Amino acid sequence: MSRVRVGITMSLDGYVAGPDQSLDDPLGKGGEQLHEWVIELAAWREEHGMEGGEVNASSAVIDGSLARAGATIMGRNMFGGRGPWEGQEWNGWWGDEPPFHHPVFVLTHHPREPLELTGTTFYFVTDGVESAMQQARDAAGDKDIMIGGGAQAVQQYLNAGLVDELRIDLVPLLLGDGERLLAGVNPELKLKPAGVVVGPRATHLTYQRA
Amino acid sequence: MSRVRVGITMSLDGYVAGPDQSLDDPLGKGGEQLHEWVIELAAWREEHGMEGGEVNASSAVIDGSLARAGATIMGRNMFGGRGPWEGQEWNGWWGDEPPFHHPVFVLTHHPREPLELTGTTFYFVTDGVESAMQQARDAAGDKDIMIGGGAQAVQQYLNAGLVDELRIDLVPLLLGDGERLLAGVNPELKLKPAGVVVGPRATHLTYQRA
Repeated sequence: MSRVRVGITMSLDGYVAGPDQSLDDPLGKGGEQLHEWVIELAAWREEHGMEGGEVNASSAVIDGSLARAGATIMGRNMFGGRGPWEGQEWNGWWGDEPPFHHPVFVLTHHPREPLELTGTTFYFVTDGVESAMQQARDAAGDKDIMIGGGAQAVQQYLNAGLVDELRIDLVPLLLGDGERLLAGVNPELKLKPAGVVVGPRATHLTYQRA
Repeated sequence: MSRVRVGITMSLDGYVAGPDQSLDDPLGKGGEQLHEWVIELAAWREEHGMEGGEVNASSAVIDGSLARAGATIMGRNMFGGRGPWEGQEWNGWWGDEPPFHHPVFVLTHHPREPLELTGTTFYFVTDGVESAMQQARDAAGDKDIMIGGGAQAVQQYLNAGLVDELRIDLVPLLLGDGERLLAGVNPELKLKPAGVVVGPRATHLTYQRA
């Protein structure tokens, strides 16, 4: 059965990006440290066309995660950062061969024709999160729908009650300021723990909608 | 060797108390749910002079924790809430026989004579967190010093570099607003993971100063 899953890295003080985000520093001050745990994994490197890397308890968390997904939804910042790209012809952060290999739906206010790169097509959705979800469901079929981030996209889908599984990759890092993952999420949302994996650089906390 | 330890319960969205705290509702809206995991434990109930309760993976986290402590430091809210008690003769939240059974140092701006209850004396410290720590060290000897909360006391001791061990009891609860545990903690503070215990209602994350 198709499930809607969030997988996102958060600092111990609750941020998914540090302060002073910009096109030159898309994860904000200190934010690059958030993803060290995943970049060092062989499973992640293989998905991104790189060799080497290590295998540890965190590997199982991402191994096959993209393979089980049939569509991804992301905010505009995760596609290409906040700034002058919108409505322009920049191809975003993901290079000529993005790692998704399935349709990606980008939430934005700026209409744009689909961007077809090797193995992955980005679709730009301007009519809201529910529309993006419907398009993602149609594209994913029986496979899962991943919500990649950033925080605002996650918050909108949590508040809409559309997330089946939330996995937070918690890293022992303080950012002090920036973009908080769970700011403004309705306390009425009930979550139940659904597993913990302890990796050397991140603790992976999975919750399901109760 | 004497160590300075924090042990505090935090919601998934980072709060140690909900919004609208008052003397009638000291943990704020929804905040009482934070501590359900501990109140149901036999180990906690025994420390508080109650019978019954259950034994589960969380039990080991608190079992003996108070016994290893020779002093506790807490903020004024944790002693008696924000409000008219300060400088007055109210004895706080903890009843006639508080569970500490060692000296407790309360951070406050209002001088007050020590309050001696059965087994526990509360000392009111008006000259700052460093003074309270020195007094707690003198009282604790070789035993540990616990910093009980609230958030502000924890933040001050973390930022002063005086915390050896931080244990966060993370519960799958969203409070939406309130008192954030790690707001304003200096990102220069480096923590290293030192163990995870997965209980049925809380995930216990321990960090040490790196």
